[in-house]
Amino acid sequence: MKKLWGGAFSQSSDLLVDRFGHSMESDLRFWREDVQASIAHARMLGESGILAREESATLLKGLATIEHEGTDSLPKDVEDIHAAVEARLFELIGPLAGKLHTARSRNDQVAADTRLWLRGACKHICDEIKALQSVLLRTAASHVKTVMPGYTHQQPAQPISLAIHQLAHFWALQRDGWRMEFVKVAGDFSPLGASALAGTGFPIDRLVTAKELGFAAPIPNALDATSDRSFVLDALHVSACTMIDLSRIAQELILWSGPEYGFIRLSDAVTTGSSIMPQKRNPDMAELIRGRTGRAIGNWTSFASTMKALPLGYNRDTQDDKPALFDSFDLTRDSLQLATLMLESATWDTKRLAVAAEAGFSSATEIADELVRHGLAFRDAHEIVGKAVLMSEGQGRFTPEAKNFLAEKLDSSIVERLTGKSAALEIVMNRRSLGSTGRQAMGNQIRHAKRLLKRPGFPSIY
Amino acid sequence: MKKLWGGAFSQSSDLLVDRFGHSMESDLRFWREDVQASIAHARMLGESGILAREESATLLKGLATIEHEGTDSLPKDVEDIHAAVEARLFELIGPLAGKLHTARSRNDQVAADTRLWLRGACKHICDEIKALQSVLLRTAASHVKTVMPGYTHQQPAQPISLAIHQLAHFWALQRDGWRMEFVKVAGDFSPLGASALAGTGFPIDRLVTAKELGFAAPIPNALDATSDRSFVLDALHVSACTMIDLSRIAQELILWSGPEYGFIRLSDAVTTGSSIMPQKRNPDMAELIRGRTGRAIGNWTSFASTMKALPLGYNRDTQDDKPALFDSFDLTRDSLQLATLMLESATWDTKRLAVAAEAGFSSATEIADELVRHGLAFRDAHEIVGKAVLMSEGQGRFTPEAKNFLAEKLDSSIVERLTGKSAALEIVMNRRSLGSTGRQAMGNQIRHAKRLLKRPGFPSIY
Amino acid sequence: MKKLWGGAFSQSSDLLVDRFGHSMESDLRFWREDVQASIAHARMLGESGILAREESATLLKGLATIEHEGTDSLPKDVEDIHAAVEARLFELIGPLAGKLHTARSRNDQVAADTRLWLRGACKHICDEIKALQSVLLRTAASHVKTVMPGYTHQQPAQPISLAIHQLAHFWALQRDGWRMEFVKVAGDFSPLGASALAGTGFPIDRLVTAKELGFAAPIPNALDATSDRSFVLDALHVSACTMIDLSRIAQELILWSGPEYGFIRLSDAVTTGSSIMPQKRNPDMAELIRGRTGRAIGNWTSFASTMKALPLGYNRDTQDDKPALFDSFDLTRDSLQLATLMLESATWDTKRLAVAAEAGFSSATEIADELVRHGLAFRDAHEIVGKAVLMSEGQGRFTPEAKNFLAEKLDSSIVERLTGKSAALEIVMNRRSLGSTGRQAMGNQIRHAKRLLKRPGFPSIY
Amino acid sequence: MKKLWGGAFSQSSDLLVDRFGHSMESDLRFWREDVQASIAHARMLGESGILAREESATLLKGLATIEHEGTDSLPKDVEDIHAAVEARLFELIGPLAGKLHTARSRNDQVAADTRLWLRGACKHICDEIKALQSVLLRTAASHVKTVMPGYTHQQPAQPISLAIHQLAHFWALQRDGWRMEFVKVAGDFSPLGASALAGTGFPIDRLVTAKELGFAAPIPNALDATSDRSFVLDALHVSACTMIDLSRIAQELILWSGPEYGFIRLSDAVTTGSSIMPQKRNPDMAELIRGRTGRAIGNWTSFASTMKALPLGYNRDTQDDKPALFDSFDLTRDSLQLATLMLESATWDTKRLAVAAEAGFSSATEIADELVRHGLAFRDAHEIVGKAVLMSEGQGRFTPEAKNFLAEKLDSSIVERLTGKSAALEIVMNRRSLGSTGRQAMGNQIRHAKRLLKRPGFPSIY
Repeated sequence: MKKLWGGAFSQSSDLLVDRFGHSMESDLRFWREDVQASIAHARMLGESGILAREESATLLKGLATIEHEGTDSLPKDVEDIHAAVEARLFELIGPLAGKLHTARSRNDQVAADTRLWLRGACKHICDEIKALQSVLLRTAASHVKTVMPGYTHQQPAQPISLAIHQLAHFWALQRDGWRMEFVKVAGDFSPLGASALAGTGFPIDRLVTAKELGFAAPIPNALDATSDRSFVLDALHVSACTMIDLSRIAQELILWSGPEYGFIRLSDAVTTGSSIMPQKRNPDMAELIRGRTGRAIGNWTSFASTMKALPLGYNRDTQDDKPALFDSFDLTRDSLQLATLMLESATWDTKRLAVAAEAGFSSATEIADELVRHGLAFRDAHEIVGKAVLMSEGQGRFTPEAKNFLAEKLDSSIVERLTGKSAALEIVMNRRSLGSTGRQAMGNQIRHAKRLLKRPGFPSIY
Repeated sequence: MKKLWGGAFSQSSDLLVDRFGHSMESDLRFWREDVQASIAHARMLGESGILAREESATLLKGLATIEHEGTDSLPKDVEDIHAAVEARLFELIGPLAGKLHTARSRNDQVAADTRLWLRGACKHICDEIKALQSVLLRTAASHVKTVMPGYTHQQPAQPISLAIHQLAHFWALQRDGWRMEFVKVAGDFSPLGASALAGTGFPIDRLVTAKELGFAAPIPNALDATSDRSFVLDALHVSACTMIDLSRIAQELILWSGPEYGFIRLSDAVTTGSSIMPQKRNPDMAELIRGRTGRAIGNWTSFASTMKALPLGYNRDTQDDKPALFDSFDLTRDSLQLATLMLESATWDTKRLAVAAEAGFSSATEIADELVRHGLAFRDAHEIVGKAVLMSEGQGRFTPEAKNFLAEKLDSSIVERLTGKSAALEIVMNRRSLGSTGRQAMGNQIRHAKRLLKRPGFPSIY
Repeated sequence: MKKLWGGAFSQSSDLLVDRFGHSMESDLRFWREDVQASIAHARMLGESGILAREESATLLKGLATIEHEGTDSLPKDVEDIHAAVEARLFELIGPLAGKLHTARSRNDQVAADTRLWLRGACKHICDEIKALQSVLLRTAASHVKTVMPGYTHQQPAQPISLAIHQLAHFWALQRDGWRMEFVKVAGDFSPLGASALAGTGFPIDRLVTAKELGFAAPIPNALDATSDRSFVLDALHVSACTMIDLSRIAQELILWSGPEYGFIRLSDAVTTGSSIMPQKRNPDMAELIRGRTGRAIGNWTSFASTMKALPLGYNRDTQDDKPALFDSFDLTRDSLQLATLMLESATWDTKRLAVAAEAGFSSATEIADELVRHGLAFRDAHEIVGKAVLMSEGQGRFTPEAKNFLAEKLDSSIVERLTGKSAALEIVMNRRSLGSTGRQAMGNQIRHAKRLLKRPGFPSIY
Repeated sequence: MKKLWGGAFSQSSDLLVDRFGHSMESDLRFWREDVQASIAHARMLGESGILAREESATLLKGLATIEHEGTDSLPKDVEDIHAAVEARLFELIGPLAGKLHTARSRNDQVAADTRLWLRGACKHICDEIKALQSVLLRTAASHVKTVMPGYTHQQPAQPISLAIHQLAHFWALQRDGWRMEFVKVAGDFSPLGASALAGTGFPIDRLVTAKELGFAAPIPNALDATSDRSFVLDALHVSACTMIDLSRIAQELILWSGPEYGFIRLSDAVTTGSSIMPQKRNPDMAELIRGRTGRAIGNWTSFASTMKALPLGYNRDTQDDKPALFDSFDLTRDSLQLATLMLESATWDTKRLAVAAEAGFSSATEIADELVRHGLAFRDAHEIVGKAVLMSEGQGRFTPEAKNFLAEKLDSSIVERLTGKSAALEIVMNRRSLGSTGRQAMGNQIRHAKRLLKRPGFPSIY
């Protein structure tokens, strides 16, 4: 394997060493960014007089060719992408290729490449988040009056609308998008020109390369620029947060698509069969999203543990930032797309949702609230309704006896209304507080969400 | 143990259940926030006519008493802080205490308390970050000309100044401060009034309570407001990032205070002795910071794993957000203070730093750069210097033979300058690129850092 | 705070340093083990002539008093338990107390204490595992003919018996018990006498102290004895494994106790109510077990990350092994007890289990198998049954049309039997393979489990 | 992509779904195990009369061809390895291939494959552990009298021999080997025949397939056999433990190969150069081992988090057990080989080790011990030596003044001996306790280690 160094060595490296140390396979993910950073560097070297204009022009021409050729012409039996690009450049323009390395080092170069790659990857994730949000918002807008059980402790608690549920996930994703904007800012500074660790004596202009590459500014400290990988940890955190939010959606889809809940039917496209049980409709994609959330968590842990207690200056340990980053971002992107596909193509069983919402004693809170409105302390109201529930135990609904008991405290028409057939819908619609499931509150919330969805990016959380 | 519920139950709970479920001990950390949130709620209940003015006034008077009394008067044998406050309130004002729970639930209450606590805790951390930055900046400002070895791969690479090294940590902390501002924003929204999960039918005004408590706005979705704990995960991430940055400082202090490096002497205040070896000066505080970084990592992992795949609506699992949060923030705050104390009271051995900077072949890069300035391609320059190093192997400095070999390519006065006694200082001072160790670049960087340090908070990274 | 060292120091330590460094609170958990190790050491010092017989006797008398007094008489404002015991000993017997520290160090002492504590803790966990297994086995034995849906992908797949399900958890716990035996062995070696890191010049007898303390043997290398904490990581792993297994039980209980599944009713003792919803029966204990599994995972991660890359010899970082260990073992023990309590006091709704088992197309596999017995390749059989399911889509059971289609390939009496009312029970009972739900196989499995349960400890997995 | 199911589906699957769900690439790692398990299954089907003898024979012939052909002939555009093998089998023997799936499912099959793969992988790791141990032991045997500083808190504490240091790592690896034996046992049970989750009605003989595949026994519960992946978590734990132990070696090599310590020179084969600094000898392999320890930790965390709270029965989430397992085992194996290569080819600088051992006050403990032998309490002795150290502060050795002070309490010839030139060697040699650095103790320890190294495998820890 061809290496960029070797002068001081008398022994040849071992195959095992090559295998353990090489990153070429993973580096191919950011070959374009590497070439682009080299282009910016080569141009600046010419403009600042460090290289002759013609030298710079030749380097730029060679690099343009490489960018155009793509990865096919790059040698693969090299240590890393920097070596690959330089080797190809040598084939194209001869020994002048060596001058590209003037006033820079792999230490600042790889940090620049990673940051450039991350910028693009964040953008893709943000687009996918918007796509999923838009499905959630659409469903919410058409299901303001679809009642379903709201859960706490995974037990039915109070009736809610499907709309508030879908929007709850909308807001979680809004936060993830907002976090991703934060990652973009964290990564938006140029290490290029930091060289190995201390800057350089050549009169380079870091502002120029930073600007050409679209960075906000150069990183103000060369040692920090080559030692820092905290932006990668930020990216891994945000990807884990997003996966955790998706795992919550996935868990609900897994449960709700089963016959016990029966709230939703996933489309054939996203379910799979069994090799042995012909009747199965398995929510494999949801299971994989749920399972791979563990991987996103593990990637953060892995890299946090790697960075712990590293003294300053580049350490080879940090090479493993990219496999973790690529893996987490790939699976986050795929999972966002799959969640969108699953929700978009699913069919909600609004009847079963309604039946489930009416069942149990989901109007209990409302009855207690009504008692409060009639002057009781909440604690007393709570105890009274508790007794009525106890009287009805095992029946799944308030018994006539329990209703009579309640009617001692409340007008019997109110009792009837709050224990009757469409009690759930009435309760849901009559919530009034900001953010509640009530008709007007939901209208406001949907408009709020629409407004944010339309804005480019995620400039604010709410 | 007194509980806020119990009406529907016929059996008494078990001691074990109480012990496993109670959070009172940990809740005491945010008793004040709980009372403050109750005050805002009680006032709003009165203003919006849900309670009578006098009722609201009595509640407020009772709550003010509790806030004034502090934790001593709160019962401790209760399930949680909400129960404790209500029980004490009952003692103070009688059954009216029960009305405080109108139109709210422990689900929105505990989320509000956590967010209020977090706001204060972030502020403290930010203050400690500033304090540590200020020590780093002070040291940097007085050591622009103090040379030391710059390391890559934990091996001496090129001479740098102590100033650039101290500022590298300054910038890392700047990022942590900036991250903490992000956590503040993430937590800056009010769940109060979301009630159990769906909002309430009472005509509460969530804007009013949000404003009184200093939140930016109410969370727009009641289900989300009670299900979401992602802001806690953000806080755990930022605290882990900060600890990782401190662990890097700690690792350097541990190494550099030992006789092999001998760069720094830690003060007696922060070292400890050995029960068996009377000569020992152990950097225990630095070791503990390094070790406990693992705990900050573990706390993130723990809570990420807890949140994975939880369906929406409050789940009891999330109760454990606070112990992790308290632990991580406590140790981050203590570690920041200890790092400040260690660095503030340490003595740098500038002579040993200089000797170490001159040793080895730390001017090798500069010689190669000089060859490039004389027209060689960087790769060729690299090979030539590599050969000179090989010729001098085992000597620790360039041998006369090696110097002669270099003088074939470069003016011998240049060779002499770059291999002589004060080569390190000259190299360090002559770096010119932005962010480098050079005199002028360091001056700019120090001014940059001072400007940021003076600004309140961390509104930008750089 | 009184410290065991201090001679070489001119400055006094800071309060913050004391707080960050002290471990006294956590150390109280193993005060008894510390005293016992001191007793063994003191006796050996006398027997081997390093101390005079009377000196040894006085030390032993003092230590016996301390063991008898318990923690009340120990000073609490000291750095650690070793200092506390020595201070108390000094009060009791005067300056001779200082001689207890001859030929030992806190480094070997704390390692010995941790190992002794762990031995007892493992035993307790093993007992709790047996208790839970015994409940599972009892339920299994009475429910061999109770049919329920067996799930794959969290969707009903084939009917199984409640017996096979309960025993599946039995075996998982059997493995956890077996793992705990492994932890016992890993911890069963004595570091005592390793002193600070290198052994000692005093003619101590490590075999004697190892034997008195019940260890299998002394650790053969003094440096390793004081540097190694891998047995703690083993213990954290096994506790995480156990918690993961319990979280799987907990997740099932949470789902199955809800109205959608309705398979089980948890007793009042282990459910809790809601402060706002009087009808709620929340499976809080199961939720907390599920949530705290995250903590057990985080504790392993935390300590693994702490141990990474520590050079040999005692490092202060390792002080944090014990808080993690105590936390994980406490919550594992509590969770085992709670799982036992939940399962022991739960009521299974065998009717709903049966109805759920019959629903869907859970006999599909059996029909396919029957087609195979009639000569078809499995793949073809699978396709045929798949078509019959498709014909019946939306009906939840095979339609007459689908039955007719099947009857083209199979005797119609067989079709009737496998699609009729008690198809589930028949299918469950007729499995014959080892480990299957069939009557005979289950009998064998129950006998197998009983045999293992009776054996003391967990000498083998199966 | 060809799938093993599909009958009940009307829509075609999406490309994204295929990509997210497929495991073929990773499955190729255990293609051979998959074929072997199929061979055992096919033979048993014939022997037990479920298939005709000739059918079984044809299946076996086809499978033998596939095993002989290797992966080249397997189709790659399939979902998983099971589909690939069946597709190839169909090409070879026609529709009879479908009968291979009689009485089994992918659920038991993939569990069997993973267990078979793990068995081989454990063996390889154990071999590599032995190889590394053997280098450590060799170094130890030749360096019983090589003195070096022993460290605690990463500060020189007492002189030790290089032998005890190398053997400390030997014992750590002995534990890792012993743990690996435990993983072998944990994985040594056959899930084959558990079918999808409940066993089968076909009269299969699980004892026969278990035996043919070399398993100790069949897993006694079909549901457990397909749900359990705890043996994978065990394997990930042990691999993380091994990596942590290697990271401790790696950290020492990184530090000790630098000029500040200068204890060891790594060979050219395992160091790398710098693209910009021609003098560098970077311990990249050691850095990568240290860094990738984070990955081994992350893999455990990832899979633990994935397994948390999964209800019983196969869940698709568990598909990701193998990528984590392969990654951790690959990097553990490579790291073991690299550690062996590094240590085998390194040169110890015994002179610098000796100088470092003599420097500082490393004889302080011995002097204190001597004072104890003269009748002082250890605490008093500690204070006296502490004062002598304080008198000599900044000199690095005991000053004449300090020696005189000590001579007030001790014979001056003893003082001279313990503060003189070869004090370190004398102290090291004169330790006598079991496991110490003393001559005789080290001899015993080396013999002990040799004995264990010779035994096949790791039947015991010590």
